[in-house]
Amino acid sequence: MIVTVTLNPALDLTYPVDALVPHHTHRISAVSERAGGKGLNVARVLHALGEPVLATGLLGGPTGTVVAGLLDAEGVPASFTRITGDTRRTVAVVDNEDATGFWEPGPVVPAAEWSRFVEHFRGLVAGASVVTLCGSLPPGLPIDAYGVLTRVATEAGVPVLLDTSGPALREGLAAGPAVTKPNAAELSALAPGWTVADLRALTSGAVVVTDGVAGLRAITPDEEFRCAPPAPVTGNPTGAGDACAAALARGLRDRTAWPPLLVDAVALGAAAVASPVAGAFDPDVYHEMLAGAGC
Amino acid sequence: MIVTVTLNPALDLTYPVDALVPHHTHRISAVSERAGGKGLNVARVLHALGEPVLATGLLGGPTGTVVAGLLDAEGVPASFTRITGDTRRTVAVVDNEDATGFWEPGPVVPAAEWSRFVEHFRGLVAGASVVTLCGSLPPGLPIDAYGVLTRVATEAGVPVLLDTSGPALREGLAAGPAVTKPNAAELSALAPGWTVADLRALTSGAVVVTDGVAGLRAITPDEEFRCAPPAPVTGNPTGAGDACAAALARGLRDRTAWPPLLVDAVALGAAAVASPVAGAFDPDVYHEMLAGAGC
Repeated sequence: MIVTVTLNPALDLTYPVDALVPHHTHRISAVSERAGGKGLNVARVLHALGEPVLATGLLGGPTGTVVAGLLDAEGVPASFTRITGDTRRTVAVVDNEDATGFWEPGPVVPAAEWSRFVEHFRGLVAGASVVTLCGSLPPGLPIDAYGVLTRVATEAGVPVLLDTSGPALREGLAAGPAVTKPNAAELSALAPGWTVADLRALTSGAVVVTDGVAGLRAITPDEEFRCAPPAPVTGNPTGAGDACAAALARGLRDRTAWPPLLVDAVALGAAAVASPVAGAFDPDVYHEMLAGAGC
Repeated sequence: MIVTVTLNPALDLTYPVDALVPHHTHRISAVSERAGGKGLNVARVLHALGEPVLATGLLGGPTGTVVAGLLDAEGVPASFTRITGDTRRTVAVVDNEDATGFWEPGPVVPAAEWSRFVEHFRGLVAGASVVTLCGSLPPGLPIDAYGVLTRVATEAGVPVLLDTSGPALREGLAAGPAVTKPNAAELSALAPGWTVADLRALTSGAVVVTDGVAGLRAITPDEEFRCAPPAPVTGNPTGAGDACAAALARGLRDRTAWPPLLVDAVALGAAAVASPVAGAFDPDVYHEMLAGAGC
């Protein structure tokens, strides 16, 4: 069972508009609501692939209840820790050109609730083959929260995939996840001019950096790879990195050799671009890309 | 007891940002949540004035539960009918210049739930001295919903104040509310070039049209008035019309003569501008304006 951790999930609201006009009022004709968060997308993709998966993390308040209900309606197995704070919302205002995002910060999580989650996580790790730690941390959590979870899993012999950004990435890396997978923008935000090798120098595990249509670059403890899809796929790039993470987690579980594992990650990421919603992928594009991606 | 009806209340979310940049992502550092809707603001103002008031209307889903909780925390007496659809949200993105609004449409209310509300309303009318009908209608309600409620109240001898816009205003007017109170923008949106007199020709009651710092114009079955504050007040005009409506409702109950009633409405509206949040007013400005407003 792959356990996906989402510490700062969200209720994603999408508001379609003809055009976003600052300082005007927009009457929204239809709202779409979806359970959001990178870890939830990883869980969705694995679930769609037929892989045993369990989504965990923190959910609270009325918005948390809505997110739990949406996830349940999708059939994704989940075991979240309830917290007192209210799970955040994100609002995406989508016009004909692009999306404009408004991201709430997430609930302030007190230390006692975090400890309760760590204990819950410890129990789940006992039945896990791989753990994924994806997305941002809500306010109030220790900045090395992913480091703490990585050490719990690693001590139990369960490999960890880490996909986050900023200080949470820097602190998590040091705990030595089996794979750390930021994207190129998150890498350069960490320190201007940094390369994959700079990141790799900070961890005992492998580093895989995704870079949109350019594919990915991986540096493992022994080797180095570049891998790209045979042709660029157009569509919605949101969630492509999460599909890559899902493929990497499955490959970690199966101890797949790096070249076919990275090909799978590139193909699944490209197939996610071809799907209009995050957390889903186009199976035809996936198989087409699997046949053509090179490493 | 003044009964305030809010058929399409909202959870109002305010997102402060430095600047709204279309097609970028904005991380919101703090979110404020407030129970929203014109009728709720009328209820708040009356409650703050110490007048017996009861807020009613439709609330549903998890967002409706949040709105009910927020209202309860403010101490405003309420008796809403629960519906299956989810109460809407409004998002106001506020930068240094102004607010940009995103208004969800509201839940689709089936006929059976509407009938259930009308029966609930009939019961409340028995104990009411005045009824206010304010704000938009959620999807699914008959366009003459305010007409239906106006007839129920009027047949029971309870005067009605109507404050809405568009087709709901046009249909409601015909049922003859004691006072109809749109603002100048709502009047011109109804039919370009229309005056207060044109609106007054469609109803047996009085028409009061508010026009921001210019004050208000009223045409009653017998007389005509213009009324303005002694000096313009700067601040947040949202909710000023609702404060006016609260004053008019109280005056209807007390059978106050038109000139002092309209002075009270102008003064309370101006005092609401001086308060940073809708549904509240500045008592000092209120008393200052009461002394100075002319009619």
